[in-house]
Amino acid sequence: MYAESNARCRCIDVHTHVVPHDFPRYLGAKLDAPWPSMIDAHACHRHVMVSGKIYRTVSHHAWDPSRRIADMDTAHVERQVLSPMPELLSYWLDASDGATMTRYLNETVASMASNAPDRFVGLGAVPLQDVDRAIAELGHAMHVLKLAGVEIGGNVNGVPIGDPRFRPFFEAAEEWGAAIFVHPLRPAGLDRLVGPAALEQVLAFPGETGLAAASMITGGTLARHPRLRIAFSHGGGSLPILLSRLQYAWDAFEPLRQAIESAPREMARRMYYDHLLYDAAAIVSLIQTVGPTQVMAGSDYPFAIMDKEPGGRIAALDIGDEWKSLLFSGNARRWLGLDEEA
Amino acid sequence: MYAESNARCRCIDVHTHVVPHDFPRYLGAKLDAPWPSMIDAHACHRHVMVSGKIYRTVSHHAWDPSRRIADMDTAHVERQVLSPMPELLSYWLDASDGATMTRYLNETVASMASNAPDRFVGLGAVPLQDVDRAIAELGHAMHVLKLAGVEIGGNVNGVPIGDPRFRPFFEAAEEWGAAIFVHPLRPAGLDRLVGPAALEQVLAFPGETGLAAASMITGGTLARHPRLRIAFSHGGGSLPILLSRLQYAWDAFEPLRQAIESAPREMARRMYYDHLLYDAAAIVSLIQTVGPTQVMAGSDYPFAIMDKEPGGRIAALDIGDEWKSLLFSGNARRWLGLDEEA
Repeated sequence: MYAESNARCRCIDVHTHVVPHDFPRYLGAKLDAPWPSMIDAHACHRHVMVSGKIYRTVSHHAWDPSRRIADMDTAHVERQVLSPMPELLSYWLDASDGATMTRYLNETVASMASNAPDRFVGLGAVPLQDVDRAIAELGHAMHVLKLAGVEIGGNVNGVPIGDPRFRPFFEAAEEWGAAIFVHPLRPAGLDRLVGPAALEQVLAFPGETGLAAASMITGGTLARHPRLRIAFSHGGGSLPILLSRLQYAWDAFEPLRQAIESAPREMARRMYYDHLLYDAAAIVSLIQTVGPTQVMAGSDYPFAIMDKEPGGRIAALDIGDEWKSLLFSGNARRWLGLDEEA
Repeated sequence: MYAESNARCRCIDVHTHVVPHDFPRYLGAKLDAPWPSMIDAHACHRHVMVSGKIYRTVSHHAWDPSRRIADMDTAHVERQVLSPMPELLSYWLDASDGATMTRYLNETVASMASNAPDRFVGLGAVPLQDVDRAIAELGHAMHVLKLAGVEIGGNVNGVPIGDPRFRPFFEAAEEWGAAIFVHPLRPAGLDRLVGPAALEQVLAFPGETGLAAASMITGGTLARHPRLRIAFSHGGGSLPILLSRLQYAWDAFEPLRQAIESAPREMARRMYYDHLLYDAAAIVSLIQTVGPTQVMAGSDYPFAIMDKEPGGRIAALDIGDEWKSLLFSGNARRWLGLDEEA
């Protein structure tokens, strides 16, 4: 559908997921840890098994770099930013098991990225259920494995990322120039859904992401760490809707001005967002809300809900070429610190 | 700020709340029912007391028609649609206590409306924790008290309104031409907030409303009752953000098409929304998403977060006079069935 404009864009897709072909055997101390494993499914597919059940069935695109690169060439994607399938972040495991799992994920992602450094950038994972361990693993990921940063959930076992307990982690991320990619998982509001199971990701994810982003503003973490490079998936979810109301309340209520250092609308323009809203008007509205320097291409590759032509969708937007260039790759390069490395 | 344009508009404000000056004493069977009472506070104010604590302090504007009419004249509001302060909906009381409370609220609102029928339209309440009682009370409110409809929560003790158990209620509402006004209360996601207590209403309300509206689409109730006149407060909350994603998923996934009869974007255009988003771009975007025939003026009068000049804000939008006329009053008249009565 976007063939002609696609030919002109070589975008960085910041929102793509990896599932390893295998997991190491569980060697921890728990009898019933929900440790994932993989078994064969139909051709080119494997089941991710958790606690004896199929959590999801994924294709070889989830782990095979050559399959991914073929798809990237078709979709005119120059580079994919690789991050683990969010369920693998494993915040619900014991911290030591979580550290083992995230180390394995980080080595897997780093291996994929280092074998094709012009096509992939790697983001790892950290066991945020234990902030000290998370900082240690972030250091290993950044300094030893040379990942660009890590993916984190919008909440850690129900605690939103803007909670003060996570400030030391964000301090380290700021210090080390880590790119942080926030993805919803285990969202609030599941009891408010009526209909098929797929609605968890369709309808509960945006609200979870919006509240996670808002918590970085209302909890003060963003104000404390102005050089933090943090990005939110799915266009920041409901954040744009929340912002109008938060800004109005901040203007009207003294207690909110006491708690939130700068105007919420301004704070939101310090964070990054992918463009994964599936709708031109919604993407343009996001750009107008958070600024043309803060929105990046993101597809959710290789999952079923992915935007198949992220670059093409951006190319078709009614915005100037300068902004398109920022969305294709300029903003992602700045978020990932790619030009700093050079 | 909107003085000149205000002079031209006489709008119907569909989102205003009432707190009675007093409540009857509790005569139910429970020892610790959270039944509200009122006590004097500072001049012209009273405390709403629940379970021995101040739930909220409200001014005489909450119950005094003459104060309200004076404010309406200043703000060029022709008519207020009166609905109870949402916490009074009392879904957490025993159903018989809930029926007593909602009957009292309905009589209070009906008295205010019938004493100044050219300035007020009344919406009542129903004990939705018991669907049969709710239908009975809706009948009394519509046929005896001559209210235009009722306010309901987006969830009833955690169950979203799109759950099939509420279909008989919506069937009666459709049959009797009741205007239904959906307001958030006891929202999901409170554990995702970091900061002052006021954030419950600022940040958790929009997501609750968005999921409630989505549940009417995904649960099939809206498809079953095409003549139902249902309106959502706060511009439908996060619904516009959810819609893009739901539409994309509906196009992509067979199970969603099985569950949802018509395209989600089209279903959303069957429902009504107030304009209470505090931001011109957000309001125009809502109009473009749900259609110019579905958005109405709403202020949240007399609470602190209210939009002080709803008509003025609409008058200042960059839309044509025909659409403004619909937003001022045309859409509200259709939602409320005002022209059917005449």
